[in-house]
Amino acid sequence: MLTLDKVYHAAYVLKDVVRHTELIPSPVVDGCKLYLKPENLQLTGSFKVRGSAYKISQLSAEEKEKGVIACSAGNHAQGVALAATKYGIKSLICLPEGAPIMKVEATKAYGADVCMVPGVYDDAYKKALELRDEHNYTFVHPFDDENVIAGQATIGLEILDELFDVDIIVAAVGGGGLCSGIAYAVKSLNPKIKVYGVQAEGAASMVRSMEQGEIVRLPSVKTIADGIAVKEPGENTFRYCSEYLDGVVTVTEDEISYAILTLIEKHKMIAEGAGAAPVAATMFGKIPDLEGKKVVCVISGGNIDVNILSRVIKRGMVMSGRTCNICIELPDKPGQLAEVSKIISDHGGNVVWVHHERTSEMIDVSGCYLHLRLETRNFQHIQEIMQALESAGFNITETPV
Amino acid sequence: MLTLDKVYHAAYVLKDVVRHTELIPSPVVDGCKLYLKPENLQLTGSFKVRGSAYKISQLSAEEKEKGVIACSAGNHAQGVALAATKYGIKSLICLPEGAPIMKVEATKAYGADVCMVPGVYDDAYKKALELRDEHNYTFVHPFDDENVIAGQATIGLEILDELFDVDIIVAAVGGGGLCSGIAYAVKSLNPKIKVYGVQAEGAASMVRSMEQGEIVRLPSVKTIADGIAVKEPGENTFRYCSEYLDGVVTVTEDEISYAILTLIEKHKMIAEGAGAAPVAATMFGKIPDLEGKKVVCVISGGNIDVNILSRVIKRGMVMSGRTCNICIELPDKPGQLAEVSKIISDHGGNVVWVHHERTSEMIDVSGCYLHLRLETRNFQHIQEIMQALESAGFNITETPV
Repeated sequence: MLTLDKVYHAAYVLKDVVRHTELIPSPVVDGCKLYLKPENLQLTGSFKVRGSAYKISQLSAEEKEKGVIACSAGNHAQGVALAATKYGIKSLICLPEGAPIMKVEATKAYGADVCMVPGVYDDAYKKALELRDEHNYTFVHPFDDENVIAGQATIGLEILDELFDVDIIVAAVGGGGLCSGIAYAVKSLNPKIKVYGVQAEGAASMVRSMEQGEIVRLPSVKTIADGIAVKEPGENTFRYCSEYLDGVVTVTEDEISYAILTLIEKHKMIAEGAGAAPVAATMFGKIPDLEGKKVVCVISGGNIDVNILSRVIKRGMVMSGRTCNICIELPDKPGQLAEVSKIISDHGGNVVWVHHERTSEMIDVSGCYLHLRLETRNFQHIQEIMQALESAGFNITETPV
Repeated sequence: MLTLDKVYHAAYVLKDVVRHTELIPSPVVDGCKLYLKPENLQLTGSFKVRGSAYKISQLSAEEKEKGVIACSAGNHAQGVALAATKYGIKSLICLPEGAPIMKVEATKAYGADVCMVPGVYDDAYKKALELRDEHNYTFVHPFDDENVIAGQATIGLEILDELFDVDIIVAAVGGGGLCSGIAYAVKSLNPKIKVYGVQAEGAASMVRSMEQGEIVRLPSVKTIADGIAVKEPGENTFRYCSEYLDGVVTVTEDEISYAILTLIEKHKMIAEGAGAAPVAATMFGKIPDLEGKKVVCVISGGNIDVNILSRVIKRGMVMSGRTCNICIELPDKPGQLAEVSKIISDHGGNVVWVHHERTSEMIDVSGCYLHLRLETRNFQHIQEIMQALESAGFNITETPV
């Protein structure tokens, strides 16, 4: 049973293990007083170490002697690895074979042994349970465990320490451990504080489950927010979220990308998709009654793969009009590329990619298509350039980036 | 004349205006104890506000009444704008027409009037001096002014406050104000502390000037570190750097990119090129005698344009083997693309871009070139994929990304 005692105990135990991340005031949403709780700056780059560390601290001497096992392709792996190392016990982490090499390396660097399992997450999970049974390891669940939840709940206490009169707290929901913990802790102390969960539209398992009043397992999940790409909530977390949350909202991939880009530009800070989701929800009007309120968005982690980061930045740029693709129909005669280039540069556009297509069966034999990617200042700038090209007689269309 | 009194006075005055940024321990360089001084988290996203604010604070009532003018395409503009607004006086900033729209908007948002000047930085500078003479504004120089330097010097005092036994401080050199201030302050208190400057190879005006013993003006500068793309040092800053610095080293664009990527991955933190340059110098062996030393790298700013950030991340990925371009010579017959794709995916590579070229005059008429961009795990992974393709009989080359 989760109790406030247990949460306070976790906060005491964790003082020695985790970083107390300080709230950062943020100007990115008008009309409310927004603060960020930067758990992306937590040890291991995510809040997950809190739950793992408290869980591990509470094991018996015999359990500690045998060691722990976990299954994760991401933040939980690093959290368990670091926590086990801090308590001087062995950890073994099962990862699906396709896990990003950076996360595998980081997990090893924190002191865990790593077992790469062919297949996907579910295969690695099965393997972890087998190894647990075989060696009597303790399995550290990523979310559906009351000691793990109590560890995550310490975030709620820290927020109240710094901002006792907070009105609204927004945090991401994957399996639901983070939101269960925070909501339980702050509502136990002050039921008037609203707590909202946020899921990615492509992985809204808690939303669906709460709608149906029972745990729903999604056949598949798809989102750049890999930290919350979870097919079903846990039994404990479903119960706590149903009882304590004021709602769970969803955000789109584009909204998440825009929020990541905003945190980069306004706070010089990297959030992973799950970490930026609460900011996205707050920016895009998903959270009710913000006006004049003190709002805390929990930035749960910053472990974003740079390949994904690169794509997210590009998407954020598209959404803010700082890049666009255009396709220009050209008569196939000399001087056309020069003329187009001149018009664009005269209007301050920067061509970063060109593809000149002569062989499409879509156009008549004497024509061709010129595909360009431009760096631009904003949507108005894009319009200016398009209009200049049209005025010069070119037939153009904007195409997806 | 710069005096230690003046620097302490600046530190006192600035307490009310700027943020005290706290040192962050960093694991990114083996063999030394590295700390980051995160001035990218300073108000306006860079240290520049320190110098401007102290300069403005020391103006006479009459000068304040008339207001200030400055010329900058970047951090100095935002620094002057915010400082002037904090002291309740008018500021006018001349920017070259091509300045990134984001920086123009930020400058306005901090309360400055903005004058867009056709041409480049030198044109904007000339215009600013004209307007100064016309309206009796005070010109706030970005670096070559002893009150500005005293403001930047407060960074040195803050470092010593937190880490009195620091051995080495590394900071970027553009005009030289930051390094002049820091070196003057810390050497005045403890001459044993080493202070190194860092410039981009493509903008090494202080390096050239110190070599020649006189100010050298470079005909042009070229670097992604736009914050230190300065053609010549100032008279004061040249004198201070010559007297107080233990050396000025240079870093390449690739080294800067790698350092930016490292700060993103290890610290979830965005640095601009100039801000990452000291980390690059420290990582790539440019700073002598690091072994066992306490080293502080000043991350001078975080205002990197996202278009540039996107390119820098890509470059950093190339440098760490996480993306590559390959070109495959194919016989022009069906099934070839399918075979290549299968080999790559069987080896865990991810194709992100394809260009199929049939019309090159470089190859015989029955062949064609397939250009691919892959996401990969590291250099070893690239080699595995290349070898697998070669074993299958394909003729391949790695091409520049």
